[in-house]
Amino acid sequence: MVNVAIMGYGVVGSGVVDVITQHSESLAQKAKEEISIKYILDIRDFPDSPFADKFTKSFDQILNDDEVRIVVEVMGGLKPAYDFVKSCLLAGKSVVTSNKELVAAKGAELLKIAQEKNVNFLFEASVGGGIPIIRPMTQCLAANDVIEIAGILNGTTNFILTKMIRDKMEFNDALLLAQQLGYAERNPAADIEGHDACRKICILAAIAYGKHVYPESVKTEGITNITLEDVAYADSWGGVIKLIGQAKILENGKLEIFVAPMFISRESQLSSVDDVFNGILVRGDETGDIVFYGKGAGKYPTASAVVADVVDCVKHFKARKYLGWEDTTENYVADYNDYKFSAYLRCISNNDRNAVEKAKSLFGDIQIINRSNQPENEFAFISPVKSSSEIDKAISALAEYGIETISKIRVGEV
Amino acid sequence: MVNVAIMGYGVVGSGVVDVITQHSESLAQKAKEEISIKYILDIRDFPDSPFADKFTKSFDQILNDDEVRIVVEVMGGLKPAYDFVKSCLLAGKSVVTSNKELVAAKGAELLKIAQEKNVNFLFEASVGGGIPIIRPMTQCLAANDVIEIAGILNGTTNFILTKMIRDKMEFNDALLLAQQLGYAERNPAADIEGHDACRKICILAAIAYGKHVYPESVKTEGITNITLEDVAYADSWGGVIKLIGQAKILENGKLEIFVAPMFISRESQLSSVDDVFNGILVRGDETGDIVFYGKGAGKYPTASAVVADVVDCVKHFKARKYLGWEDTTENYVADYNDYKFSAYLRCISNNDRNAVEKAKSLFGDIQIINRSNQPENEFAFISPVKSSSEIDKAISALAEYGIETISKIRVGEV
Repeated sequence: MVNVAIMGYGVVGSGVVDVITQHSESLAQKAKEEISIKYILDIRDFPDSPFADKFTKSFDQILNDDEVRIVVEVMGGLKPAYDFVKSCLLAGKSVVTSNKELVAAKGAELLKIAQEKNVNFLFEASVGGGIPIIRPMTQCLAANDVIEIAGILNGTTNFILTKMIRDKMEFNDALLLAQQLGYAERNPAADIEGHDACRKICILAAIAYGKHVYPESVKTEGITNITLEDVAYADSWGGVIKLIGQAKILENGKLEIFVAPMFISRESQLSSVDDVFNGILVRGDETGDIVFYGKGAGKYPTASAVVADVVDCVKHFKARKYLGWEDTTENYVADYNDYKFSAYLRCISNNDRNAVEKAKSLFGDIQIINRSNQPENEFAFISPVKSSSEIDKAISALAEYGIETISKIRVGEV
Repeated sequence: MVNVAIMGYGVVGSGVVDVITQHSESLAQKAKEEISIKYILDIRDFPDSPFADKFTKSFDQILNDDEVRIVVEVMGGLKPAYDFVKSCLLAGKSVVTSNKELVAAKGAELLKIAQEKNVNFLFEASVGGGIPIIRPMTQCLAANDVIEIAGILNGTTNFILTKMIRDKMEFNDALLLAQQLGYAERNPAADIEGHDACRKICILAAIAYGKHVYPESVKTEGITNITLEDVAYADSWGGVIKLIGQAKILENGKLEIFVAPMFISRESQLSSVDDVFNGILVRGDETGDIVFYGKGAGKYPTASAVVADVVDCVKHFKARKYLGWEDTTENYVADYNDYKFSAYLRCISNNDRNAVEKAKSLFGDIQIINRSNQPENEFAFISPVKSSSEIDKAISALAEYGIETISKIRVGEV
């Protein structure tokens, strides 16, 4: 029998308890040992819970109990999760977490401790909820060099964008609906401003390329500025707007990584990833494009991924899983100004009849796109591929002509 | 250093040699040991190959060399692959294979020997080529009960159907094109008659439900009877025709499993899996629908999956991977006649003006569908859900009225 402690009895934590309880027989068969919950750590009281006798408010009780070999951290946030997880690893306990903030901020350090202590630190649930992605990337794709990763990594923003695209709902209304349905939190900033997606692409990039990527170093743009007009232009171009986290290694060895809304062609597998679903594309040099699709969040999808990691820990008390990456190095993340892409730009001509000609003279070979009910003084186009700084320079030059750019969205190639 | 022998230097075998050679450094890093090819077994001579010194025609040389700890079987077929693999496992060598025919026919037996000998028998490449599916199902989804699996498991037939759907190409022309492009073999029976897909759904069902499923026990229908008229009706219904392998456990504990062309709604993630790509949907009780998408065949995708298994073997010399299933039991696979589904039927009315009324009286609440250029004496409809035998009975009753059913295709719910 293996004793497990669960730290945090929120949505995911209570899901983990349910999954372990409801699947106990098949889990024991797979792990070749019974998995037993010894403690549940939470500052709140749950006197009516069937697990009432397992609750504790004392982290030290868990830390000092040698019978506890696996600790599940599903509290979220960095404080006190980071201290708790670090202490558990140092005490020789394996840790499973769904906490993307923790892994994105402290992954390299915690993995190093796990390695030194010969225990496991697993976090399949931190990216893509119930979608298998961490393990397939580390194991199944081990014989590939990852050329690129691109993913719809946040279900809340994908739900909002889907509502805007399908039902022509304004951003604010779609956000309100997401909140009413429980998909978005009352303070939705982490989702709609792209920070959640950023943590996840950082974790995936670390796995793919072996170096930690700190979220602060990643250009991150949310979806708060996306309008129905942009959605209409994307449609007439032949695609949809999706919030994409993307990462690839450049020829100079630096990492190009960002989170941004993007025009995605309807030909792309990612374009049909709708509602709260996530989709992650991994482009391997040998295997080509692989896409993983499923619910990226939610109580039971996430909990089931956590519990699968617990089973893996039990199976690997002797042979530690080789999962790890180095800390970052200076200037590892390339300068966003140098990133090259094609952009969709929407401009107000302010009655300049030569506005389009001026845009052509500044951007080169542009592709004009139109929408229905397009005002006379508005035009939109797809620019040729240029560096981010070149695009910004051209936008400034347009502004000097009195032509205002009111939308700028990257055009995706995935 | 770990010595590996490769049995078979065909498309996949030569790919395996290339991948091991080209990725040697990163593989060594991941496996924590250098992976070295000691032998390549093939009956042919390759005097000009850079690996000429590694070729052997003697299986015994590999079998009796204790330095060879991992054997890669990429010969295909059952003879002599089965004897060779069995001998290697009995001799205490781990085996990695891409041979779906072998795993579908002999998986239970070979896994049992591997368990007894405490070695690994891995076959990620046998299903979905380079798409991670076996390992995610056994590990990442360990905390789920699998409710259902449904997949586009054969790239050749998917290419042919895509050509029929997109380019209105007749089946025979599309097959010819597939052969010209190297996607279909000169004798394409295994692909177009569904046997290849059948082996793969058998392997997935064994993993999901723990019991071997012999391909002979599975109702298997290919795509040779699909016409452009059927494709047009599917389009007007709101979907596409795909060759699907599907498996689920019924309430009585029996397995419902089949391979058949199906109408798939455009809402389904599987409907956009086109060309030679495969897509596999796994419905878990906790995690909901997960879809894995990628190239299901091809030299390097398949080879990279084989090599990833080799890396996993190296990492697991001490802790064997728990992967296995029992042999089948009597009557485990349910009788196809009892399978319940809704069907698309295309009929020739032979100038019977009441033909549709007669169909209604026999099938109940049918949904009439139409296509352009539909002849006056043709009609098509979607039946309500009925057992396979009930549908066949109603078709016979229609025939007694002189109304001939010329197409019958299941309507998918995935």
